[in-house]
Amino acid sequence: MTARVPDLPGAARGPVVAVLCADRRPPGLELIQSAAVVRYTTAAGLPAALRGADALFVWDFTSTAVEGAWPATNPPRWVHIASAGVDTLLFSALRDGDVVLTNSRGVFEGAMAEYVLGLVLAFAKDVPGTCAAQRERRWHHRETERIDGRAVVIVGTGPIGRAIARMLRAVGMRVEGIGRAPRDHDPDFGVVHGFDQWVGRLPHADFVIAAAPLTARTAGMFNATTMAAMRRSARLINVGRGALVVTEDLVAALRDGVIAGAALDVVDTEPLAASSPLWSLPTALISPHMAGDFVGYLPTLADLFVDNYRRWRSGSPLRNVVDKRLGYVLTRPGGG
Amino acid sequence: MTARVPDLPGAARGPVVAVLCADRRPPGLELIQSAAVVRYTTAAGLPAALRGADALFVWDFTSTAVEGAWPATNPPRWVHIASAGVDTLLFSALRDGDVVLTNSRGVFEGAMAEYVLGLVLAFAKDVPGTCAAQRERRWHHRETERIDGRAVVIVGTGPIGRAIARMLRAVGMRVEGIGRAPRDHDPDFGVVHGFDQWVGRLPHADFVIAAAPLTARTAGMFNATTMAAMRRSARLINVGRGALVVTEDLVAALRDGVIAGAALDVVDTEPLAASSPLWSLPTALISPHMAGDFVGYLPTLADLFVDNYRRWRSGSPLRNVVDKRLGYVLTRPGGG
Repeated sequence: MTARVPDLPGAARGPVVAVLCADRRPPGLELIQSAAVVRYTTAAGLPAALRGADALFVWDFTSTAVEGAWPATNPPRWVHIASAGVDTLLFSALRDGDVVLTNSRGVFEGAMAEYVLGLVLAFAKDVPGTCAAQRERRWHHRETERIDGRAVVIVGTGPIGRAIARMLRAVGMRVEGIGRAPRDHDPDFGVVHGFDQWVGRLPHADFVIAAAPLTARTAGMFNATTMAAMRRSARLINVGRGALVVTEDLVAALRDGVIAGAALDVVDTEPLAASSPLWSLPTALISPHMAGDFVGYLPTLADLFVDNYRRWRSGSPLRNVVDKRLGYVLTRPGGG
Repeated sequence: MTARVPDLPGAARGPVVAVLCADRRPPGLELIQSAAVVRYTTAAGLPAALRGADALFVWDFTSTAVEGAWPATNPPRWVHIASAGVDTLLFSALRDGDVVLTNSRGVFEGAMAEYVLGLVLAFAKDVPGTCAAQRERRWHHRETERIDGRAVVIVGTGPIGRAIARMLRAVGMRVEGIGRAPRDHDPDFGVVHGFDQWVGRLPHADFVIAAAPLTARTAGMFNATTMAAMRRSARLINVGRGALVVTEDLVAALRDGVIAGAALDVVDTEPLAASSPLWSLPTALISPHMAGDFVGYLPTLADLFVDNYRRWRSGSPLRNVVDKRLGYVLTRPGGG
């Protein structure tokens, strides 16, 4: 695609919407093009596309280009991102300004909960070992683990953590949450412990799920010290952000048997370099940031933007407004 | 081990119990040895061990040696097998005689339901593809399938099929059963269709689970004709008995894309020969008959035998009495 597409001839004038793409454009934006000037751009063209833009749609949510392209004067009034995490957008000019930031909460939760359960069962039933034995045409019987009654600590009590909690409870696991607001009778988690208590909960867990946003508080929370508090039989599953984990500490913990395994759907630098030691650790399971990316997720993400765009134009409350100090949406999905 | 262990010196006389083992004896039988003569044997010694035996415990449930070793006169009065399936014991002399046959219903159900869910998610989330990409150090993003709302047909409405039904419903799948007794309001399945209707249900299923006992009615039920009725996108999961499936027809169906995949925890001849084409089919997932074999299943199986032995000695109703004409236990677990 070209870095900058000229405005469609004959389009009615309207708000200028910059859309940051990588190789493919979001589907379905023709629904707004009759009453907007849509500027599709890649990272290279972003500074120009943002000049005079009223809104920015970060379709390529992996991009880190927004900070460098952000206009010093007259920035967009609204930024929407096609992801749940907004960490790439929390630079000070955006965070401290008046711009409204919205995310794609509500799209990924169900798929991610299924994916996490798939990873839990991949560990418990040794699916990777089965694939390896099959490659060698080897009939190799093993005893496998039950998941019924096993203890899970889920770090992050946002909608993704909640969907994971409901799913794992539905299959008989015992879950508890780690979150901002401790409480005893949470409908999804039962008990939620505060972040000041979280390391003390690690020795009780068979599975630890990282489903937190990346913020100053959560960055590097899984490091040599905290992983040493986990059971040697425990597995860590990260579907949040790669930088929640200190990768070199995790590599050492897996090599030394400090923990029994780790499934990483996110890593600190994506795509993961071919030279990374993570790929070849026998107790690591690496997937390419796809836990939430179900068949049909792209149109669903684009639809959410179109819906929010219409709300924005009509002055209705936007969906998924991010609290820029916290780094995530504070209220329930669908709320303002 | 030796083929035949002499009776313990000083043991009180009591019933003679032959125990058919492969390489390892069942744990915990010392609980009955003070008041019984326990004859541990491998297949080679079975004819001698059965001479004058009152009971037979088939610990090596993979063995097919019982038929050939069965005494023409004075056979055991009770046979117990450490498995759910009893197909190796339904030869006419045993089936038509007075011998009571019991199985290990109640031990495997929960583990098997978890295992089947693990296989469903392995397909939906492409865990084998993730393992393969990791081996090649390749960051290969894919969209994956939701399981929420997907349709499952479970063939077999015994306790294993029921546990699978409950588990898959708990995670949002739509299930229906194929069984002996059709009904509309089954607590686990919702709807159960009869075997006369089963092929007509196949076009509706995303996943077809074979969890039936091997009987004259079920042998070879998955063949070229019936698999052609399945969706091209559907997967077959067999955790029942290998001979439910005509293997060469399945190989052809997978090769030709008649169905999208198959996970086989059982095959018609176990262990599967290294030369089998199944191993290298990219849409096949082969595991070595271990779906129910959770850590601790061996002591659990032995405990069930000891409990039944005590019932037998005291004249109480035995657990898991098999209807030898049907080939499985007719009533609920725990019942006579």
